[in-house]
This record gives sequence, C-alpha cells and structure tokens, in this order.
Amino acid sequence: MTFALAEARQILAGTPDALRATLVGLSESWLTADEGPGTWTPWQVLAHLTHIEEHDWIGRTEQILEHGAEQTLGPVDREAGFARFAGWSAGRVLDRFAGLRAANLATLDGYRFDERDLERQGRHADLGLVTLEQLLATWTVHDLNHESQIVKTLAKRYRDAIGPWREFLSVVDLP
Amino acid sequence: MTFALAEARQILAGTPDALRATLVGLSESWLTADEGPGTWTPWQVLAHLTHIEEHDWIGRTEQILEHGAEQTLGPVDREAGFARFAGWSAGRVLDRFAGLRAANLATLDGYRFDERDLERQGRHADLGLVTLEQLLATWTVHDLNHESQIVKTLAKRYRDAIGPWREFLSVVDLP
Repeated sequence: MTFALAEARQILAGTPDALRATLVGLSESWLTADEGPGTWTPWQVLAHLTHIEEHDWIGRTEQILEHGAEQTLGPVDREAGFARFAGWSAGRVLDRFAGLRAANLATLDGYRFDERDLERQGRHADLGLVTLEQLLATWTVHDLNHESQIVKTLAKRYRDAIGPWREFLSVVDLP
Repeated sequence: MTFALAEARQILAGTPDALRATLVGLSESWLTADEGPGTWTPWQVLAHLTHIEEHDWIGRTEQILEHGAEQTLGPVDREAGFARFAGWSAGRVLDRFAGLRAANLATLDGYRFDERDLERQGRHADLGLVTLEQLLATWTVHDLNHESQIVKTLAKRYRDAIGPWREFLSVVDLP
C-alpha cells in the first residue's frame, strides 16, 4: 500500500507555508481572480480550506473512532468559509489556517495510529463505507487539490498575455 | 490588458518559498514519484526550473533588448537540469533556485521597463514573433505550470489511497 501516515503528515505540515508563499505577496487583482461564473477565487479557496480545517478532518476522525460505521459522517458545506471569513485579509486567514493545522497535527500525533487503527471504518452519506486511512489520505490530497486549483486560477489570468507560448503551458487550459 | 509587470513580479518573487514549503520536508518516496513513463518527478521539475532560471529568462530578455527580432531566441533543453544537478539534494537545488531568482529579479528591476519596452519584439524559433511582455508573462506562468505539475504528481501517488473520495478530488485525474 502506498499510504504511510508519516509521509502524509509531511504534506500536511508543509501546506500552511506553501499557501502563504503563494498568496501573501499578491495584490487583490490576483486574490480575487476567478475562472468564470461558478468558480472560486484564491481567497475563497483559502477560506474553504480554513473552514474545513476547523471542523471536518479531526471531527470526522473522532467520529470514526467513536462511532465507526454506526453514524453517518456529517455533510460538508463547501462554501461556508466564504461567510465565516468575510472581511478577513488573506494574511489573517493564513494565520488562522496555520494555527489550526498545527493544532490538528498535534491531535493526530496524539492518536498514535497503527495499521489496525487505519482500517477502522466509517460511513459517508454519499460514498458509503470508508476507512480511516482513506479519510487521512483524502485530507492530504484535499490540500493538494486546492493548491492545484489556486495555481491554475492564477495562471489562467495570464492565458492571453503569454501569447503563442500557450501551447507549451498546459496549466492555462486545465479544466 | 491584464498583464502588469509589478503584479507578475509578485508571483515570481513567491515561487522559491512556495517550492521550498512544498518540497523540503518530503521524503524521497515523494520526491522521486512520477506519473508513469515519460513523466517527471518533483525533483526533476525543480531541477528543470533551476536550469531554466540560470539561462533562459534573463538571457532571452537581453537577447530581445539587444537584437530584437533579428536573432532567433535559442532553443531550451528541457531536461538539461537533470544532469546539471545530478546528485544534488532538493534542499541544495532549492537554495540555488532561490539565489538565482533573487538575482534575476534584481536584474529585471534594473531595466525599469515601461509600456513601450514591453512591446519590443523577438523571434522564437517555433512560435515566430513574440513580445517582451509575452516573455515576461510566460516566465510567470511557467512557474505556475510547474508548481501545478509538482502538486499533481504528489497527489496522484495517493489516487488509490483516497478510495471513493476520488470523485471529489479532480487533481488525481488531471492529464
């Protein structure tokens, strides 16, 4: 199996600084750019990540540990972070995200999960049975998914500006 | 026009720290992962970015300033960085990249380009006439393109580990 908790933790630990380096020096024109109707801005992605970090990853882990597959994992409100952090600067949301992530990793470390723990099952409302290992892998890939989204949204802002180089830079044409 | 040099510079200035935060804590299993035959590892992407930073962006800028469209912009060896930095740790390549980027931004600042400068033309071997503005936009998007690639390659390593959550995490299925 490819998943290893210590390795997943390496990704999770790097995300606050990666987001900060990507976003903190950017003007509003970058932070409020989107890819068109129905898409998110980099600020909104950051707010989403921070809201999810407040509630879902450790919350769902605890739910699996306490209730297993007896209780359905609560639904996620993907856009709740937009209102939660309305009016906050990107820097302030980044600080909040970094603090939450550090606390959540400390909680994660405290569980001292072994291989058998990772096999414990929960029940997702739409996806059915899931394992704790899948949840922790999803936490990790969720970070990367949204880092990818931020970088893509930034890049697309210059899709026209790069002129004929567009054919070599696939990021501006990603779905 | 969307391009603004001061804004492009914000992205360029953040890239060394973004790459460092993403890569520096990762074990070799992440740094040497690829997406299959013919694809690059995160370490290789970093080596490519660093090699290109040594030669191409400021070199091409100078070529346009000095020769305009009279001289063809030299071809880029996309994989030359692999041999150039063979045996270097990711941390050492990151240090090299950060030093080069800082020097190149200082050089860029020294040009004090105005709108008319940005309209100056060069000639690309395959793409034909290009402008200095397109080159500088491409430098910016090239960073984002390869950050996107690194994040995607890392995420795909856990494509199976996330189980049914795959349907919500499109990064693992990007081309």
